[in-house]
Amino acid sequence: MKIDELGEFGLIDRLAERVESKEGLIKGIGDDCAVLEDGDMYTLMTTDMLVSGDHFNRDWHTPKQIGNKSIVVNISDIAAMGGYPEWGLISIAIPDDVDVEYIDEIYSGMLEVSKEYGLTIIGGDTTHGDILVINVVVVGKVEKENLCLRGDAKVGDVVCVTGDLGKSWAGLDLLRAGKEGYTEYHLEPKCRLKEGRKLAPHVNAMIDVSDGLASEVNHICRESGVGALIHKEKVPISEKTKEAARILDKDPMFWALSGGEDFELVFTIPKDRLSHIKDIDHIVVGEITEDGVYLVDGGKTELKGGYDHFRI
Amino acid sequence: MKIDELGEFGLIDRLAERVESKEGLIKGIGDDCAVLEDGDMYTLMTTDMLVSGDHFNRDWHTPKQIGNKSIVVNISDIAAMGGYPEWGLISIAIPDDVDVEYIDEIYSGMLEVSKEYGLTIIGGDTTHGDILVINVVVVGKVEKENLCLRGDAKVGDVVCVTGDLGKSWAGLDLLRAGKEGYTEYHLEPKCRLKEGRKLAPHVNAMIDVSDGLASEVNHICRESGVGALIHKEKVPISEKTKEAARILDKDPMFWALSGGEDFELVFTIPKDRLSHIKDIDHIVVGEITEDGVYLVDGGKTELKGGYDHFRI
Repeated sequence: MKIDELGEFGLIDRLAERVESKEGLIKGIGDDCAVLEDGDMYTLMTTDMLVSGDHFNRDWHTPKQIGNKSIVVNISDIAAMGGYPEWGLISIAIPDDVDVEYIDEIYSGMLEVSKEYGLTIIGGDTTHGDILVINVVVVGKVEKENLCLRGDAKVGDVVCVTGDLGKSWAGLDLLRAGKEGYTEYHLEPKCRLKEGRKLAPHVNAMIDVSDGLASEVNHICRESGVGALIHKEKVPISEKTKEAARILDKDPMFWALSGGEDFELVFTIPKDRLSHIKDIDHIVVGEITEDGVYLVDGGKTELKGGYDHFRI
Repeated sequence: MKIDELGEFGLIDRLAERVESKEGLIKGIGDDCAVLEDGDMYTLMTTDMLVSGDHFNRDWHTPKQIGNKSIVVNISDIAAMGGYPEWGLISIAIPDDVDVEYIDEIYSGMLEVSKEYGLTIIGGDTTHGDILVINVVVVGKVEKENLCLRGDAKVGDVVCVTGDLGKSWAGLDLLRAGKEGYTEYHLEPKCRLKEGRKLAPHVNAMIDVSDGLASEVNHICRESGVGALIHKEKVPISEKTKEAARILDKDPMFWALSGGEDFELVFTIPKDRLSHIKDIDHIVVGEITEDGVYLVDGGKTELKGGYDHFRI
């Protein structure tokens, strides 16, 4: 069977079904991080692989930006669990046309953003490969009461995001088309670690936007056994992203729902707890229902889509 | 500067110099695993990236063997610290020409060997890439008193290995030449987890053979601030490896000293403790001295070499 028939998440499910659990494992494959017992805390572990041509482009990204992104995407997963990062491991495969100064710059990007988020690099693997590949592992911690899983959304919760969506894909499509515009966020994404820490005591489910709002809401609903209504007019898209869409004659809502890599947090929270998070940037975009995941825009249509590495 | 001028280990040193430490970190970059405080134990973390064409060959290795190797190389690092594996994370980048059944077989190899060594897979990342790349992270534990670092060799220790050397490279060179012979070990390497656990309470320094005996002995000496004499006639090379060398008209000693991927353990131990390890397979190949690392063969020559991913 071709991989694109099964898709990225079908492939992950297929592995998850074959893996046995063990004492001490709270959550294995299927959330932003694995969760392990660790005294009165939980240990969080996450990993992301960035491959040249797929996750960055050496013609667009500076080496520093490549290093930066490789760390941010992982810390975003820690943030989505309500935790904080502690330790990082970096594997890098280096092709023949890359020199030492280029690698120094990748490390500069990694170290700069690691410092910003409190991460310490403790090891890794340095090797050769025909293309540039970076794998980062981040180990973090979270207080037991602050752990936020995808599967804890409750009927009646509202669905919120921490910021505007579609901004990363706007930049990517501009770069692909060779046009000027709002490319900064795509090249230097941020993550919402500080916000995740503040939100964690109050929210039910949480996930980061890796693959677009449609994908993330569906993950939450599937894991929680609930449905959701997302109100199209409430999905936040910035003026800069809309301008990029005008330049390219594209629909910015598609970027927001299916683009991904915005690294905002999507979370669900009981309405009566919204008062607790009023100092944290957030936009209410929908609510959790009994079943079905719909985009509401006058009528309602099934909310499908989201980025899949094997279905592009 | 070209990467091959600096070499793999020069590049690692260059990163290590820029990284700051933090409370709880016992050993960062520069050993087989990173070591972290964990109550009355230490946590061990290691990672290895395997890139198609560099670390395996899809024409020679079955997908199951690729999966198998990706786990073994990491568990070998845990064994070299005296510890045992607990948790694993797998990142995989899949090119277009690979199908679902091929990935299933890779996972079969991973799961089979994970079960053998007591490892549980708890997460990872599944993505697309132009070539097949697998990154594995293994987290393990070791009792504090059993931790074996590269840097603990003492003058007067003897230097031992747990088994014969050069066997992986013998197979690789046969496969490269398209000849029949002893390729099994290269295609399905083992690691010495059980032996590492038994040796740990008795030995001083320990390391696994990733890059050849020459490289590993030099790592131990550099980290311990000592020297070593390695007696050429004592370096164990099996008849099967010697036969491969005859077929290819090559020197099997080169494979033993500089080939690597044998995943035997190299350790140093005070002579008077040898009686404690008499039930564990080992061969004494040399001794630790004040300074200089030499190969003794009638006269003595500086022991250099070892595999470097950027200097082949």
